[in-house]
Amino acid sequence: MARQSLQIELAERPKGSIVPGQTFRQRTVAAPTEADLKDGQLLLESLYLSLDPAMRGWLNDRRSYVPPVGIGEVMRGNAISRVIASKSAKARAGDIVVATIGFREVAILPETLVEPPFPLPPNGKLTDLLGVLGPTGLTAYFGMTRIGQPKPGDSVVVSAAAGATGSVAAQIAKISGARVVGTVGSDEKVRWLKEELGLDEALNYKDPDFKTKFKEATPGYIDVFFDNVGGEQLDMALGRAKKNARFVMCGGISGYNAESPYGLKNISSIIAQRIRMEGFIVFDYIPEYPAARQQLAQWLGEGKIQRKGTVVPGGLAVAEGALSRLFQGANTGKLLVEVKSPDEVSKL
Amino acid sequence: MARQSLQIELAERPKGSIVPGQTFRQRTVAAPTEADLKDGQLLLESLYLSLDPAMRGWLNDRRSYVPPVGIGEVMRGNAISRVIASKSAKARAGDIVVATIGFREVAILPETLVEPPFPLPPNGKLTDLLGVLGPTGLTAYFGMTRIGQPKPGDSVVVSAAAGATGSVAAQIAKISGARVVGTVGSDEKVRWLKEELGLDEALNYKDPDFKTKFKEATPGYIDVFFDNVGGEQLDMALGRAKKNARFVMCGGISGYNAESPYGLKNISSIIAQRIRMEGFIVFDYIPEYPAARQQLAQWLGEGKIQRKGTVVPGGLAVAEGALSRLFQGANTGKLLVEVKSPDEVSKL
Repeated sequence: MARQSLQIELAERPKGSIVPGQTFRQRTVAAPTEADLKDGQLLLESLYLSLDPAMRGWLNDRRSYVPPVGIGEVMRGNAISRVIASKSAKARAGDIVVATIGFREVAILPETLVEPPFPLPPNGKLTDLLGVLGPTGLTAYFGMTRIGQPKPGDSVVVSAAAGATGSVAAQIAKISGARVVGTVGSDEKVRWLKEELGLDEALNYKDPDFKTKFKEATPGYIDVFFDNVGGEQLDMALGRAKKNARFVMCGGISGYNAESPYGLKNISSIIAQRIRMEGFIVFDYIPEYPAARQQLAQWLGEGKIQRKGTVVPGGLAVAEGALSRLFQGANTGKLLVEVKSPDEVSKL
Repeated sequence: MARQSLQIELAERPKGSIVPGQTFRQRTVAAPTEADLKDGQLLLESLYLSLDPAMRGWLNDRRSYVPPVGIGEVMRGNAISRVIASKSAKARAGDIVVATIGFREVAILPETLVEPPFPLPPNGKLTDLLGVLGPTGLTAYFGMTRIGQPKPGDSVVVSAAAGATGSVAAQIAKISGARVVGTVGSDEKVRWLKEELGLDEALNYKDPDFKTKFKEATPGYIDVFFDNVGGEQLDMALGRAKKNARFVMCGGISGYNAESPYGLKNISSIIAQRIRMEGFIVFDYIPEYPAARQQLAQWLGEGKIQRKGTVVPGGLAVAEGALSRLFQGANTGKLLVEVKSPDEVSKL
């Protein structure tokens, strides 16, 4: 019997939050085979699918850094994938690569959507390819080193600091010699940041005294704010910015599902404190990925970057539910869906 | 009889708008004399006092780029002043200088608060010292050339483009070869920008179709937004920003008297369009003032920068009323109060 491939397609644009079973539609199609492969293409199967806050933005029909996913189209996404067959010099059958395969089990992709295999450091794990060494780790790297540019002794605050991007950004700031404060959404994450990542301070934004503690944790104001949250936390950081502060605008998860945006009250600090607030998208740095990945792999190998991930079992079918829960802050570190079971993957 | 000097002191911090006769108190004191002068000081009399939107911010008791004016203190301000006597090498008796003399007629200042005399270009007027060649012109110069950096063909939008800073910023962008759109608050100002300053488009924000016209005036989106207004216009510009746009955060007059700030809806464009939004204060460029002023004087002399000012007669006593009207958008270009009458000034 021919192999089947599950795929998850956008059914309707969500108004606020993603509703599993309503926002997306699951469909099983005949999987493509090696016989369908043309020159410059690869046949891949998905192992671990990346779930990212940015995905919510791809569902809105508005001008952004990528076109929105169309109604009826397979949901866009990156996965650690195994090459089944290849007519490209980029990877060979059996290689494990990161590919923009989307929410589907098996697919043929042009080589432009497939990254070359990357050797893991000795303590590396397969899932690091989508974590510290993947788009979220690279996002942290370029945002912190190119825009944030922390100097030894600088006061750095990272929001959503237990997330895939935030946890790497915070550790890069520590490596730079800065004093680093992270904000998170649970006491368990606070402990992880302070005890394992070595951050100088970590604060739970759900704490009723969060505002006071935020102020106390930034006694000399803030040199670098790496923002993954937006809204009220961004506003608080504007109010605590030091002269010539850099605001690395990476994400705004607090607002992604909001129907009406939070109105910043401290925008005038941008002028008074001469803040440079700069947005970026990791794609802009593609030519520099290899060098950045080498650096991240080195730090990972030296134990200077710790990581923790959340791998949701259950196959591609559970991806839409896991994606919707991402916005409730349940996961620590990188969130992946296991498209193939560990038994199958370990055989690779 | 000893000479008297009127001074205007802060009586109370305004909640919203400045209320003449309530926010300030007028007091006449004995004027200092040459006998009071110490080494490094100058005795000055005020001729034209500068009124600026930024003054509203100086009345709030919050952390900013300068300490707030204290209750009971003479209101801070710059004036074109005549040196009565000098014990400083910076200027001599009879020289006309710009000095941070505050809202008073006669004062002794340390030389650090006095700028050296500056030779006017052939077509220059005394009032240019506080206009094109003064802090507002310099603000336009550094903001546009250092942060905005328009290139030939760039699409530039300047808000409050008929103001002292905006009108110079818009013309510097034109000199750079950009396509320039200005926003203003009256049809008369629209005509001035299009017919005399040569802007490519000018829009009245009070026009009921302003939003549509703003969109139509920026068909290829915006490379540089020079903001003097904040609030809704800033939000519209964020929505029309081109990839890698530069937002020069100069002022936010729409919010200075507001008790609750406007909440930006399009802040996420900073990320999606990789916007660099940067605040600045002209004081940061003091070492570069002489070279910038030379450049501005050259453009003024060549007729590449046009200007129009509003000089309010009536002496220092009318300054608080004129300052409160500044926020109603009544003036075009630089707003000054004539502290001494033209007859007296023309004798200088």
